Amino acid sequence: MRAVDLIRKKRDGGALTAEEVQWLIQRYTAGEVGDDQMAAFAMAVFFRGMAPEERSALVAAMMASGDVMDLTSVPGVKVDKHSTGGVGDKVSICLAPLVAARGVPVPMISGRGLGHTGGTLDKLEAIPGFRVDLSAADFEAAVRDLGIALIGQTERLVPADKRLYALRDVTATVESIPMIAASIMSKKLAEGIDALVLDVKTGSGAFMKRFEDARELAQTLIAVGEGMGKRVRALVTDMNQVLGRAVGNANETWEAVEVLKGGGPDDLVHLTVELGAEMLVLGKVASDLADGRAQIHSAIADGSGFAKLQACVARQGGDPTSVERRAGLPMAPHRGEATFAASGYVSRIDTEAVGRAGMLLGAGRARSSDIIDPAVGFEFLPRLGDEVRAGQVLALVDHRGSGDLELVQDVLRKAVELSDEAPEVPTLILERLGAAEVK
Amino acid sequence: MRAVDLIRKKRDGGALTAEEVQWLIQRYTAGEVGDDQMAAFAMAVFFRGMAPEERSALVAAMMASGDVMDLTSVPGVKVDKHSTGGVGDKVSICLAPLVAARGVPVPMISGRGLGHTGGTLDKLEAIPGFRVDLSAADFEAAVRDLGIALIGQTERLVPADKRLYALRDVTATVESIPMIAASIMSKKLAEGIDALVLDVKTGSGAFMKRFEDARELAQTLIAVGEGMGKRVRALVTDMNQVLGRAVGNANETWEAVEVLKGGGPDDLVHLTVELGAEMLVLGKVASDLADGRAQIHSAIADGSGFAKLQACVARQGGDPTSVERRAGLPMAPHRGEATFAASGYVSRIDTEAVGRAGMLLGAGRARSSDIIDPAVGFEFLPRLGDEVRAGQVLALVDHRGSGDLELVQDVLRKAVELSDEAPEVPTLILERLGAAEVK
Repeated sequence: MRAVDLIRKKRDGGALTAEEVQWLIQRYTAGEVGDDQMAAFAMAVFFRGMAPEERSALVAAMMASGDVMDLTSVPGVKVDKHSTGGVGDKVSICLAPLVAARGVPVPMISGRGLGHTGGTLDKLEAIPGFRVDLSAADFEAAVRDLGIALIGQTERLVPADKRLYALRDVTATVESIPMIAASIMSKKLAEGIDALVLDVKTGSGAFMKRFEDARELAQTLIAVGEGMGKRVRALVTDMNQVLGRAVGNANETWEAVEVLKGGGPDDLVHLTVELGAEMLVLGKVASDLADGRAQIHSAIADGSGFAKLQACVARQGGDPTSVERRAGLPMAPHRGEATFAASGYVSRIDTEAVGRAGMLLGAGRARSSDIIDPAVGFEFLPRLGDEVRAGQVLALVDHRGSGDLELVQDVLRKAVELSDEAPEVPTLILERLGAAEVK
Repeated sequence: MRAVDLIRKKRDGGALTAEEVQWLIQRYTAGEVGDDQMAAFAMAVFFRGMAPEERSALVAAMMASGDVMDLTSVPGVKVDKHSTGGVGDKVSICLAPLVAARGVPVPMISGRGLGHTGGTLDKLEAIPGFRVDLSAADFEAAVRDLGIALIGQTERLVPADKRLYALRDVTATVESIPMIAASIMSKKLAEGIDALVLDVKTGSGAFMKRFEDARELAQTLIAVGEGMGKRVRALVTDMNQVLGRAVGNANETWEAVEVLKGGGPDDLVHLTVELGAEMLVLGKVASDLADGRAQIHSAIADGSGFAKLQACVARQGGDPTSVERRAGLPMAPHRGEATFAASGYVSRIDTEAVGRAGMLLGAGRARSSDIIDPAVGFEFLPRLGDEVRAGQVLALVDHRGSGDLELVQDVLRKAVELSDEAPEVPTLILERLGAAEVK
């Protein structure tokens, strides 16, 4: 087999066999196929796509490039959730403990923030002492003992994805659904899960700006996962505005804690309940979504979700009392207000720009080597359809200096479009997809 | 400027500015843009093509990546010929001396054989002592003194093409007209020529199997060359059968010598005369093609073409008497016959397979590092439309052992399709194109 022949086959619209895909990924991981050939292959995939069998073969080959977690010794249906990334998406931090509190084991491996999107690991690390670098054995033990572990990717998990993602990043081949799907699913399936709920975001703050692309990605992810014997469901959700209000790290973690304590913004609670209900059904502890929703609500009401988070924090080296009050998490020295310069209805939000404002403040990363400031961030108040007046508060900004406040105010003002007439307001949950909807 | 942004622009169907193209090629040659990014760019160009301005910018940028020969001190219109490569194409060896004999300086930089096609340099090196590695100064002096120099590419000429061609070869991005055009024209324009005649081949032994692709390549080459102030004409010629009969190195050189001596196969003579007439018109020594043809015929008849070849051989370190008789060039120890196994009309020839038979015999290269045996080769006798009988001679094979003879016979037999009815026979010269036909 020669890499050039496989590239040509893909270039000319052919479908690679599972054996060919496996050969290519194996040799690439071993360094025998170079970045030059893989870049050409990735660009050919960008243009030609991949057939369903190829997509599954790619996931399997990437997963097989490294270690695969074995959680078969843990009883129960192990269920995880994955979000394709948005602004203010702190759902995992309240969702995982709620689901685990109802008896479904949640082995969750998350990522860090990059660009305009935050990352669950960065938010968790705002909790003093919290460690995300558990060994595979400690991860497995935590899932067995507590039903929950929230960690970062290890070096030995899906090494092909690490190398391929870095390559795609510099060769303009990121935006390819088969490769996005392979990157996501190879990592999720390497966790040792049995089922997965996907939150595929679409809109101005998502990678998939168009609903159709998000839907296609969701369908691909489901098909690939189901093809590998996992149960997979997906919600396509709106990311045309911030999820909740907090954008940052400590403040986002706190907002998730508020949900566990029975508070929190409506949209965040709604999405947490819906995703949780799906997970409980997949985990076979809820008979249907209505039962699942009721159980999530009860895990909030009886405090078992919050207790599970505290247990998880303690298990992973953190101080469980730190999540009992906002001041237990890092606080910026200053809080200021950003205000609207004009009046009208909030008709459009450039949510990606809102995310970038967080990055400018120090809460995110422009490059993966950047250091994050967990204390800074802001509460972004406007919702699509709100009627606002000039001078009204747009955001409460936790910052380290007034220059930062002005910078953020400027970016946030520009990110919000005002109109004279009330706009249509998008639904948060746009579509639910399962294997039945994909076939 | 960032390479990833230029890749994305091309990927999404945009046209790069001349400045962007120049930046990319410059950084690539300097090693600052890597093979991974250039491979992705090349694949994007494969799918998206390039606008006329981009094609010219690419040629200019590649040419500027190294030295450019300066022949302004040589009087006259300097004219070269380039063939896109075929099987049995030894035209340069008789054409250049004939044109030079009529007073048009021919500064010709040729390539080596690879795969099924031979290379002029390899054929010339069959002449004992002949050196193709002249310095730029010696090249210029030879053109000034003799009106002819036949050399190989120097290290410093178009280094971007060397690196890019090697990359395209392993990334399945060779078959892209803008990149083929840039590779050809950057090298030709770096020779310091004023005008160029192109022999763009199409058919079973050519890189461009389809006439439409050959035509598009010819048009692109003309547009690019004319855009850079050169006069360019192109003949699209048939490569559905071997040009002449000889396939090898010494035997091909000898066949070209036969043309200079007034003999040689009809098709080879015909193409030499037609290309020569075009060159003499471009060189402003012939008033029109009819005058050009007459002058080429007279340079054959009066022996001035042959004398020019001998002078060139002497100038470049070879023994000029070696081209006076076949035995002056390397001879294989054995000559055998390959025969037809069946009877019928020759209806199709897989000319690429015929070229590969030469390679198998040792006359060509599978890899650029392979060593060529100048003495081996064969005379391939069948012409499209011939009526042949089983047992009739198919080829006269100059070889080093009977195993080779059997191998070649097998490949050549399979390369010739026989039919019961006489097929249509293709014309050798399919189309003539100049600037007027392109605009």
